[in-house]
Amino acid sequence: MIEDKNQQRTQLSDLGEFGLIDHLTKNFKLKKGSTIKGIGDDAAVLNFNKKNIVVTTDLLVEGVHFDLSYVPLKHLGYKSVIVNLSDVYAMNANATQITVSIAVSNRFPLEALEELYSGIEMAAKIYDIDVVGGDTTSSNTGLLISITAIGEVETKKVVYRNGAKPNDLLVVSGDLGAAYMGLQILEREKEVYKVNPNNQPDLEPYNYIIERQLKPEARKDIVKLLNDLEVCPTSMIDISDGLSSEIIHICKQSKVGCDLYEEKIPLDPQVISTCEEFNIDSTTVALSGGEDYELLFTISQEDYPKIKANPNLSVIGYIKEEKEGLHLVTRAETKIPIKAQGWKNFNG
Amino acid sequence: MIEDKNQQRTQLSDLGEFGLIDHLTKNFKLKKGSTIKGIGDDAAVLNFNKKNIVVTTDLLVEGVHFDLSYVPLKHLGYKSVIVNLSDVYAMNANATQITVSIAVSNRFPLEALEELYSGIEMAAKIYDIDVVGGDTTSSNTGLLISITAIGEVETKKVVYRNGAKPNDLLVVSGDLGAAYMGLQILEREKEVYKVNPNNQPDLEPYNYIIERQLKPEARKDIVKLLNDLEVCPTSMIDISDGLSSEIIHICKQSKVGCDLYEEKIPLDPQVISTCEEFNIDSTTVALSGGEDYELLFTISQEDYPKIKANPNLSVIGYIKEEKEGLHLVTRAETKIPIKAQGWKNFNG
Repeated sequence: MIEDKNQQRTQLSDLGEFGLIDHLTKNFKLKKGSTIKGIGDDAAVLNFNKKNIVVTTDLLVEGVHFDLSYVPLKHLGYKSVIVNLSDVYAMNANATQITVSIAVSNRFPLEALEELYSGIEMAAKIYDIDVVGGDTTSSNTGLLISITAIGEVETKKVVYRNGAKPNDLLVVSGDLGAAYMGLQILEREKEVYKVNPNNQPDLEPYNYIIERQLKPEARKDIVKLLNDLEVCPTSMIDISDGLSSEIIHICKQSKVGCDLYEEKIPLDPQVISTCEEFNIDSTTVALSGGEDYELLFTISQEDYPKIKANPNLSVIGYIKEEKEGLHLVTRAETKIPIKAQGWKNFNG
Repeated sequence: MIEDKNQQRTQLSDLGEFGLIDHLTKNFKLKKGSTIKGIGDDAAVLNFNKKNIVVTTDLLVEGVHFDLSYVPLKHLGYKSVIVNLSDVYAMNANATQITVSIAVSNRFPLEALEELYSGIEMAAKIYDIDVVGGDTTSSNTGLLISITAIGEVETKKVVYRNGAKPNDLLVVSGDLGAAYMGLQILEREKEVYKVNPNNQPDLEPYNYIIERQLKPEARKDIVKLLNDLEVCPTSMIDISDGLSSEIIHICKQSKVGCDLYEEKIPLDPQVISTCEEFNIDSTTVALSGGEDYELLFTISQEDYPKIKANPNLSVIGYIKEEKEGLHLVTRAETKIPIKAQGWKNFNG
């Protein structure tokens, strides 16, 4: 679908290990004051001068987390960084550094890795982080990307998942379900392409949801916004597995219940129309779709005036006592228990 | 060879994602003062109170870095941690935390992952580090382990690869080549086993070199020793790819040359006898074998009296001016240039 059969191919075995790492990272500039030494020694050296640091790591596996038949490598590199930064922001921290390790089979030429790293570099530039380390090795099959992200936060400002209190408001940034519906479109077009490779699909009506799938953003802006508004969330998590899964994490760790209002869940019009086209319930998509990389957090009711006018934030429910349980309040005003989804990855 | 066909098998899909992570890490206790929050949130939270921190990461891939037909999973878990800690110690730092991510196919039952994590836990306990994060996902084939290690070091004590000066002494800890020869024994026994599965090999004569391959140690003790002796190396690196490759790194980054004395290279008697058995030159094995996880460093000549009596340390050469180049001085007193080895991983 997007592969250019005529592209230049340089075999990875033509380069030594150090040639490859040097080559891929030569454009990566160090800008953060906390980075003392980047790539090129046994380890990177950092200094955060008494601030707390946060560390998070994620693995992305070809065939499990991404399908290279419709994911451009540059987008993949960008997204790999974003999913990690999102976890840093969910601690109310500023992302400062990442390490990037890849395992890659011989079917990838150097030019493919250059594409991947150009996406990583773009994300590093836009989110103002340094790439300070990594490892590059061969794999027997496919591509695997492992990223560790580091951030800094003042000791008093760290936000965990376990601080939600009864009567707090449940708030979400942006809108939900778009990345999942974008994936449905890409999967459908892949099947069409298999049958008729000359078919040129019109993806214009789906541009927003496809971008949310292929090139998501992490909500660095929301961390800054909350700081500017002097709102410190009582708990926070990023939405990677779907709204219901993240609500369960917050409620379980905070030992509270909640009411989530179906009518308050923010949905983009493209999500609604595409759900209608696929005959899928949009609320189900928002609850279980995942990969939104929005922030879900709770705030004290007294902070409500500070956020109520903001178009980036939606109040979607209330925290309740633990004994009241977790419920979705539907448009028909019935209450349905919120349940955990199974882990799809190991069922395949 | 070592697989127990009757072992209990619990399918990974029987557990949820969170059940699996909780299960595998439930025995992991946090002990470091610098760990504020470990596994269980979007990110770990650490505080190093003005000290420099070092960060390093490594990927280990089944079929590239290890062969499960003769590597017990517990040993693999242990070794995966060791190879990362070795990089931390090579910065003259103390290792404090790791994150552990694994991608694993459905052919691994839960009990296999428990074995792997028991080795990780053992290494964490022995080296006094906290496991503070990680990711667990499925892979289409095999097992992949990605570990990021974090350590702390006083700002003035960080040792890089680029500080070696002409006339410095080149020093190595322990002995070299054993892990490579251990691998040769394991590979040979694997072939014997294929032909006759009932054959019980006598591995006793090779116990040291097999242990060096399957259960290497990182030289935390050497970092402490040098500190106690008040010796601060001018440069340091750990030996993962073989002595010649590491010497080249130090000389290239320090812009110096060196003379390495063949007769001074420390070899265990089992390495010498096994090299004779395989008809391989032991110096070649020490130069190119790799996986020793010893520390290679340079010190000022004035520090020589402090280390000369120590049985853990061998002076193996001298740093020279860059224009004099890098040479091995053989037992016959001829000089041979030290050359880089190719990167085997991408040639397969």
